[in-house]
Amino acid sequence: MNTSRPKKAVVLLSGGLDSATALAVARDEGFDCHALSIDYGQRHAAELAAARRVAAHLGVSEHLVVPIDLTAIGGSALTDTAIDVPEAPTEGIPVTYVPARNTLFLSLALGWAEVLGAHDIFVGVNAVDYSGYPDCRPEYIEAFERLANLATREGVEGEGFRIRAPLIDLRKEEIIRLGTRLGVDYGLTVSCYQADAEGRACGRCDSCRLRAEGFRRAGVPDPTRYR
Amino acid sequence: MNTSRPKKAVVLLSGGLDSATALAVARDEGFDCHALSIDYGQRHAAELAAARRVAAHLGVSEHLVVPIDLTAIGGSALTDTAIDVPEAPTEGIPVTYVPARNTLFLSLALGWAEVLGAHDIFVGVNAVDYSGYPDCRPEYIEAFERLANLATREGVEGEGFRIRAPLIDLRKEEIIRLGTRLGVDYGLTVSCYQADAEGRACGRCDSCRLRAEGFRRAGVPDPTRYR
Repeated sequence: MNTSRPKKAVVLLSGGLDSATALAVARDEGFDCHALSIDYGQRHAAELAAARRVAAHLGVSEHLVVPIDLTAIGGSALTDTAIDVPEAPTEGIPVTYVPARNTLFLSLALGWAEVLGAHDIFVGVNAVDYSGYPDCRPEYIEAFERLANLATREGVEGEGFRIRAPLIDLRKEEIIRLGTRLGVDYGLTVSCYQADAEGRACGRCDSCRLRAEGFRRAGVPDPTRYR
Repeated sequence: MNTSRPKKAVVLLSGGLDSATALAVARDEGFDCHALSIDYGQRHAAELAAARRVAAHLGVSEHLVVPIDLTAIGGSALTDTAIDVPEAPTEGIPVTYVPARNTLFLSLALGWAEVLGAHDIFVGVNAVDYSGYPDCRPEYIEAFERLANLATREGVEGEGFRIRAPLIDLRKEEIIRLGTRLGVDYGLTVSCYQADAEGRACGRCDSCRLRAEGFRRAGVPDPTRYR
């Protein structure tokens, strides 16, 4: 008789397509999933409602929503309403980049993982069909994992931490095929940078364009609700 | 005529002795200082009042206090009132360790520095007379600096960031002598892990012991108010 309990994982869950897929992967690997969402004053607050729906739909042991007001820091179209979300492709790192966002989110996930006794932290970052954010690249994830194992009691005295980015090398259509196979209902997710209060997408921002193109290429019907 | 404006720095300011000294060092180097304190639900809330006093006393351009409720995560005597602060020396990393605290605080400092256009982030960590926290060691600070320059637009496209830990190799008495020379009024600072609402120290916790011993060895009168 196998009485071992499943290993715990912390999964960063934004409410978007990628993090929902990362959660489905963690569940498929047999992890007892603890979802973490951050209420950072993002203009697309409908994302958090989506995170709650996704957590309930895929099944997690716990869903923690931590508020951190990044509007005091600003510097991004997502946290400063004075900066418009671009509706056409731009050169370089776009204004929707939120300074140090993934570092902050992974730090919170790391702290919670250490308290829970989890060694695996899942994050839905992707470096192929993405907005060009520096904190979505493989070398960034590797550097964070290294840091995590220097920063913590568990890293110094225990088994340490693995930062799991199962989507990092996948194209958007591959992510959608993977999630569809694992039972993700993408109709529950919100990717749009300026979704309205009901979670309806603009269809024009960078995130909407990548998502729509992904469904088209995957040959999967796009359940996104547009306004 | 030199019309150049001073360079900006972000200084993590807890309200304790070390971070006050780090701020004094940054000011002495000519930086235009932007102080950042985190209201994380620490049991010694008097620390934040001390941070405000120190910021006003030493002079900063701005003092930002960001609330992040770490009591939801818990796991430390400083964020969970069910865990007592030890009043005698303990083996290994003590229960006052807050999981991933410095990683979280440095992430916020990094985000703010990028928005401000600051390249230097000062932190008062110390790896000599300290509580044995893993995220106070030189190898940790180096790993965070490396991460910062992979994580950000400024790290990828610009001059990048330096994580400045000017106290890291100093003994407590050397920190006190340095700060005294730079005009720090340590009577404004609070180090105690369980200071009362007026900022009066217990005199028994690890932080109180290190501080009192530092003043004794420095031959500097100890201005700490005990209850």
